[in-house]
Amino acid sequence: MSKTSGDNISDSIKVSDKVLNLQKDAWFLFTSVASPDAVNLGQGFPDDPPSDHIKEIVARAISEPECNQYAPPKGRLHARQTLANTFGPLFNRTLDPETEIIVTAGASEGLTDLFAAFLDHGDHAILIEPFYDQYVANITMNGGVPIYVPLRPTGDPTQNISSREWKIDIDELRSKITKKTKLIVFNNPHNPTGKVFSREEMMEIGKIAQEFNLLVISDEYDRYCYAPDVFERFATLPEMWERTITVGDSGKTFGTTGWCVGWLIGPKYLIAAALNAHTRIVFCVNSPLQEAIAILLDEINHKEYFDQKISEYSSKREKLMFALSSIGIPYTIPQGSYFILANTSKIQIPLDYEFPEDFINKPRDFKFCYWLAKEIGIIAIPPSEFYSQKHKYLVENFVRFAFCKSDETLELAAKALIMLKPYIKKC
Amino acid sequence: MSKTSGDNISDSIKVSDKVLNLQKDAWFLFTSVASPDAVNLGQGFPDDPPSDHIKEIVARAISEPECNQYAPPKGRLHARQTLANTFGPLFNRTLDPETEIIVTAGASEGLTDLFAAFLDHGDHAILIEPFYDQYVANITMNGGVPIYVPLRPTGDPTQNISSREWKIDIDELRSKITKKTKLIVFNNPHNPTGKVFSREEMMEIGKIAQEFNLLVISDEYDRYCYAPDVFERFATLPEMWERTITVGDSGKTFGTTGWCVGWLIGPKYLIAAALNAHTRIVFCVNSPLQEAIAILLDEINHKEYFDQKISEYSSKREKLMFALSSIGIPYTIPQGSYFILANTSKIQIPLDYEFPEDFINKPRDFKFCYWLAKEIGIIAIPPSEFYSQKHKYLVENFVRFAFCKSDETLELAAKALIMLKPYIKKC
Ligand SMILES: Cc1ncc(COP(=O)(O)O)c(C=O)c1O
Ligand SMILES: Cc1ncc(COP(=O)(O)O)c(C=O)c1O
Repeated sequence: MSKTSGDNISDSIKVSDKVLNLQKDAWFLFTSVASPDAVNLGQGFPDDPPSDHIKEIVARAISEPECNQYAPPKGRLHARQTLANTFGPLFNRTLDPETEIIVTAGASEGLTDLFAAFLDHGDHAILIEPFYDQYVANITMNGGVPIYVPLRPTGDPTQNISSREWKIDIDELRSKITKKTKLIVFNNPHNPTGKVFSREEMMEIGKIAQEFNLLVISDEYDRYCYAPDVFERFATLPEMWERTITVGDSGKTFGTTGWCVGWLIGPKYLIAAALNAHTRIVFCVNSPLQEAIAILLDEINHKEYFDQKISEYSSKREKLMFALSSIGIPYTIPQGSYFILANTSKIQIPLDYEFPEDFINKPRDFKFCYWLAKEIGIIAIPPSEFYSQKHKYLVENFVRFAFCKSDETLELAAKALIMLKPYIKKC
Repeated sequence: MSKTSGDNISDSIKVSDKVLNLQKDAWFLFTSVASPDAVNLGQGFPDDPPSDHIKEIVARAISEPECNQYAPPKGRLHARQTLANTFGPLFNRTLDPETEIIVTAGASEGLTDLFAAFLDHGDHAILIEPFYDQYVANITMNGGVPIYVPLRPTGDPTQNISSREWKIDIDELRSKITKKTKLIVFNNPHNPTGKVFSREEMMEIGKIAQEFNLLVISDEYDRYCYAPDVFERFATLPEMWERTITVGDSGKTFGTTGWCVGWLIGPKYLIAAALNAHTRIVFCVNSPLQEAIAILLDEINHKEYFDQKISEYSSKREKLMFALSSIGIPYTIPQGSYFILANTSKIQIPLDYEFPEDFINKPRDFKFCYWLAKEIGIIAIPPSEFYSQKHKYLVENFVRFAFCKSDETLELAAKALIMLKPYIKKC
């Protein structure tokens, strides 16, 4: 049975079915085809340098001996207390830091915990398309079956539309519920449409959750909204607290997506199950950056901080919308998040353009993003990645740009976008 | 269907079978019963403050804008390169940082990745007892079945023994292998016995792995050895590289267990599967502390650093052994790790001592640790926690002390141990 190489030999060790059929993750596809000086509006992370204040806070955290050793699995008490103080008012209730909050290794690990804690083999999980792509593998790895319900763009595709015009068909959602349905994943503000769900839409989803006794995972991993007062937290709807776990993250709040400090908030009996999973999945979360996030949350005045952040992001949003408008490309005006979906139907990719093998059988938006990265020098994300096979056609004429980028990056993007002009069809 | 409380009501949302039956994790049991000024020789983390040098390196990492944003799922290139440079010579091969190494959120998450990547429903995983307790839940959560093979203490229990005298019965191991067996988890240097497996023992295990085409997970999460030249890495045995993934961690190396930066090293085809799981479980690992570990690994001279660390830990080991000897308590002399298993058979817990309900039906070592924490003021860990039900009796007369603690803590422990004297039976 001796082997000379460890590579894909017939009697090599079998990989589990759980991971064998996972697709390659698309995030780095475009980063790797683009030239190093392409403008990166792909992955949603800020590219501003950290402030001196952030550096000083991390230095403070690291100086505490205790902060360098294992944190309790549920998170440092200081972090949980600060999260309770911060989010209590936003959930209109007093949050118990001992039983209603756990600190996770980013929203990603928090989501993993929930699918592990609540999905049994064959259970169905409803995903609203477009969905954050990691959900699918998280669900299938835990034995669950994703069931898809799309948001569809409505309105005139040759004009700008509001993110409100991405609509869910509530009867379609209802028709997908069976005895096997266990949970709904709800993401708000919504990546990548920028949609902020209205209270009415949420109430309808909540009614279904209640009728069929479903868990709601409310992925509220960021809270930038440009329309005041539209964003409501799912868990604050009548009778929804006890069936909702809210997933949050500090990366977008403080421009530190690489710190991997997120959290789960919910009622005691659901959080206890999530903690059971979390303890076995990672045991605990890096302690110094948990502490740094606790210090940051402690010292900011939340209203002021977010007002200021939102005005900053508003101006970035304007910059990108202006750049798109200038060349006549219509887009979805996002009410929240830091993504813009531009409609590329007017842009003609040269008919004889040659695509590498990986792209030939992909939807148009993948081809578009490849061409955009290679020829125009802008990295963007094809939104059909966030739809199931059956529904990918709905968005093959869209492209996602992230605008949580430095003003310098956005100016470079605006310049690069002008190079699209010759390819725009006159209608 | 309306509810007024979210707690354990009959129509509440069902937790998955995966997490429903997980035992409470024992780590905090004793911390919570002890008074705050009890001497903590429980969990294996150092309690020295971080050096100025460590603080300076973290400051350097955090100043890099890129280090504050998402790292690639497989880890920062700098970290992977440094790991390749550090471990290549220890594995007697050139390691490819692109395909043979991934950075994980501590050894814990690395282990989770492996059980997810390689266990299908019903697959058997061999655990050598005593085992790191998290393995069990990691395995069952991924559909696997743990199969136990004990190390048994041999030699005279009234005398000190060497950790070598904890023996595995290789025929017993062989008798447990069936068609369903997928992998063996091998931990070396061994927690909690301090055993460093001999080359002969490892070769016998390796022979079985090869005969039955098993994956070997070699959990080498620390590398402190007090007997020179006994520690060999499983992956360096003949023909073992291609069936072994080595799990490592930086926490014990640099006294930073709270940073949660570990790694997996192995052949390309096995690492690719682990990366598929890892990407879905946490997506990526906190970036600043990955960078800090890379800087630390880069700048130390490994031989010198470890020689010095080992001499430091040797002296701590001597201190604790001396304290135990002084009161006549026999123990296992550890060749590696930073744990000592003391034999408590001579110590008489007062017969009328009252235990709380949680402890009444537990093995003697749990009761002993409860009494020790409450009455003597020392936190320690009951090793039967690391054995299956059937084999717990093998270690009910042992207790695990961690000696990776400040000299001050060890002196306090020595003083507290003297208080055991009146309870020691004269034989
Ligand atoms: C909807 C959504 N949920 C979760 C995440 C993951 O967040 P984190 O970076 O905290 O793991 C993302 C990241 O972009 C996201 O878009
Ligand atoms: C044998 C063994 N493996 C793995 C771990 C987990 O290590 P980490 O702290 O890197 O998650 C421990 C921690 O004590 C351990 O004892």
